[in-house]
Amino acid sequence: MPHHFADRLLDACKTKGAPVCVGLDPVLERLPDAIDQSGPVAAIEAFCLGVIDAVAGVVPAVKPQSACFERYGAPGVAVYHRAVAHAKAAGLIVVGDAKRGDIGTSSAHYAHGLLADPHGCDSLTVNGYLGGDGIEPFQQVARAQGKGLFVLVRTSNPGGDAIQSLPLADGRTVSEAVGDVVAGLGADCVGESGYSNVGMVVGATKPEDAAKLRQRYPQQLFLVPGFGAQGGGAEDVRACFKPDGTGALITASRSVIYVSHEGNSTWQQVVEQAAIQLRDDVSEIMRV
Amino acid sequence: MPHHFADRLLDACKTKGAPVCVGLDPVLERLPDAIDQSGPVAAIEAFCLGVIDAVAGVVPAVKPQSACFERYGAPGVAVYHRAVAHAKAAGLIVVGDAKRGDIGTSSAHYAHGLLADPHGCDSLTVNGYLGGDGIEPFQQVARAQGKGLFVLVRTSNPGGDAIQSLPLADGRTVSEAVGDVVAGLGADCVGESGYSNVGMVVGATKPEDAAKLRQRYPQQLFLVPGFGAQGGGAEDVRACFKPDGTGALITASRSVIYVSHEGNSTWQQVVEQAAIQLRDDVSEIMRV
Repeated sequence: MPHHFADRLLDACKTKGAPVCVGLDPVLERLPDAIDQSGPVAAIEAFCLGVIDAVAGVVPAVKPQSACFERYGAPGVAVYHRAVAHAKAAGLIVVGDAKRGDIGTSSAHYAHGLLADPHGCDSLTVNGYLGGDGIEPFQQVARAQGKGLFVLVRTSNPGGDAIQSLPLADGRTVSEAVGDVVAGLGADCVGESGYSNVGMVVGATKPEDAAKLRQRYPQQLFLVPGFGAQGGGAEDVRACFKPDGTGALITASRSVIYVSHEGNSTWQQVVEQAAIQLRDDVSEIMRV
Repeated sequence: MPHHFADRLLDACKTKGAPVCVGLDPVLERLPDAIDQSGPVAAIEAFCLGVIDAVAGVVPAVKPQSACFERYGAPGVAVYHRAVAHAKAAGLIVVGDAKRGDIGTSSAHYAHGLLADPHGCDSLTVNGYLGGDGIEPFQQVARAQGKGLFVLVRTSNPGGDAIQSLPLADGRTVSEAVGDVVAGLGADCVGESGYSNVGMVVGATKPEDAAKLRQRYPQQLFLVPGFGAQGGGAEDVRACFKPDGTGALITASRSVIYVSHEGNSTWQQVVEQAAIQLRDDVSEIMRV
């Protein structure tokens, strides 16, 4: 029986000192000058591997954003898979941010391509708009292989409100209706930590909603984007944790991987320093 | 100014005789014996190119299912892109079935990788759970390049009900809330045919909902999966059309590409025959 995903993630967060995740969103225009940019695909690969090496000793997890790689077609997808392998080899927990979701037979293909051993990530983001039978094939792979899912419930972008925060006739919101499906799917796979391997994406920019969702779903880990560049602050993030300081993995991309480069430091030293800052900021938030 | 997507699609449907689309869902276990299956990626490529050649004279459009290709990692994605190119070269309209959707910056990367010239499809399926700002980057590319979108509104799988058919406090359903966002985004890009380049995915297995959505969104083309293998019948499909016989593109995969092989016909002749049957069945439905 493989080690339960939630237990593994919580252990790694404890070891590294804070539940934080660095997003790998390689964008050619923003790469450090020190990286050879004569070939775009080689450049994003050099950048991603360099970021992974820089943060591997500091944070428990990384989150490659599939869109940034798919932009470059199949060669970009090959870089995505090599970055995943490099991060796993460095001992990091990898959250593949692909937001896939389809009817069951197609979700099963996605699960095999993006989540299953030997090439898959440790966990994957999933879009649950198609309902439980669109998520279940991902969970079949995750359950069997000690992996995790984070299903979109309340996203960090402004436009999400027009759908996710709508009130239903039964008193719930659309987010809660999706969340209830997600929590139900994960209820039979709870680790020793008390958390299911099926978590949720809950943005740091909607603290009132996050606080309600935190209460409603005690067994779900929240993957929390939106801290930093998207505007989420300390108070917003705090709403995603339980009083014992567990329950959320705070993810930041641009504020860690694209920081201005000063003095004699290399770009990797600057990224490492920004990851340390993220870790310390989140530790501080959890202490208060 | 590129030719408007909806006008182009309707013209192609008229030329070929019916608004039908063949889904390319290559699954290794189901390929015809005549295809060399010593290498899985080469086998799905041979199959997809063979299906395209077989149906190009019969139907106006094909819909490659990205999941079936991503299952095989980057080499599979390379086959996806080669199949798209082959279908475009054969004069087919290509609906990339990738169901992507993310926050704006990431959606823009997906749009460039999967929809934009020169490598992109003619249109792409999109998951709108993140709201308008997650769809808009796709529409920016589509508007500029004469391409189309089909946003998931009411899917064909049983599990969709638990979310999409829920009644909101304001009297709409969740599907209608998503549909309203989608219709709003496409309102400024309506072709001579009266249809927007931004359409919707509406399954053939939910005829009551389809009829209501058909009334509610007169400017939206419906991409209609679920006919045939998923259980949708003639009456179900009819609900997706306007009285003038326009408004829907009926898509079928398994019932066309995986048909049993009898007598002296080659597998491609059998697929062509099944595509002719699909075309004739849908023509008949529209005539009644």
